[in-house]
Amino acid sequence: MSQAMADLFKRITTGVHVIGVADGETRNAFTAAWVMQISFRPLMLALSINPGHKSYALLEDGRHFTINVLDQQQIDLAAHFGEPAPGKLAGVAWTPGAGGAPLLDQALAQFECEWAGEIPAGDHVLVLGRVLNGRLLDPDRVPLTYQETGNLDGAAAIYPESFD
Amino acid sequence: MSQAMADLFKRITTGVHVIGVADGETRNAFTAAWVMQISFRPLMLALSINPGHKSYALLEDGRHFTINVLDQQQIDLAAHFGEPAPGKLAGVAWTPGAGGAPLLDQALAQFECEWAGEIPAGDHVLVLGRVLNGRLLDPDRVPLTYQETGNLDGAAAIYPESFD
Repeated sequence: MSQAMADLFKRITTGVHVIGVADGETRNAFTAAWVMQISFRPLMLALSINPGHKSYALLEDGRHFTINVLDQQQIDLAAHFGEPAPGKLAGVAWTPGAGGAPLLDQALAQFECEWAGEIPAGDHVLVLGRVLNGRLLDPDRVPLTYQETGNLDGAAAIYPESFD
Repeated sequence: MSQAMADLFKRITTGVHVIGVADGETRNAFTAAWVMQISFRPLMLALSINPGHKSYALLEDGRHFTINVLDQQQIDLAAHFGEPAPGKLAGVAWTPGAGGAPLLDQALAQFECEWAGEIPAGDHVLVLGRVLNGRLLDPDRVPLTYQETGNLDGAAAIYPESFD
């Protein structure tokens, strides 16, 4: 584990998002920090995802995903969707977005994306999404940053000790 | 132009970075928000870049780039490196990093990357970089967020009015 490496990479600022995926009636959602805009025209976003996760298979089959932006008061929601447990969507209000991928009612902003390409990226896969729709639900809420979550996701244990 | 679309996409939180590129003794640096980590092992970062920019040609030829993280007091530096003018590195203290790409002395953190792949992404190109080295110069400084720069880069004029 390397807290020093985690501390360094935390200087690359990102938000905290719940990514929704669906393949037919099978749905899941998980917390992800590695999301950013990548194009203006067309509007596109990218997500770096661990291909070993069940949600990756759902994304590959369903070809759509949603990005639900969390606010500074929603660290519990980030923790909830960060667990590898099944059934995380039960008890959380959501509606189906593009391709049936879940849009969380509690999000401060929502984006609906269609798979538009991908490229392997080390231990992750970088998935490109064309934004089909999006909405700002509450302009007054402040997005949570990954930096504000501390070691919620245990990433310090994942970072290598050195650059080699 | 669409301020509403700009306001929506500002909810995807990112930092503000000066990207350094070099091809031999020809160097440049430019401000970019669209940077994120994409892999733990190996450590990788991605940058979305406009392929029409001169810096893209330098990056393609030089195969290296640096990421210099700016802090909340450095909005003027973000504006300086956001201009399309030549000679932006004159008068700014820097040292050559991997491949000769410039590392800014004033950055709060620096990353040196080697080109590791790319994929077209709408009007940009998503460039993957393997992180060869990096350092946290000042743990007490707070990274500037893109959201805090307002309409410094004039992006509201670039966003489409709708999702079509």
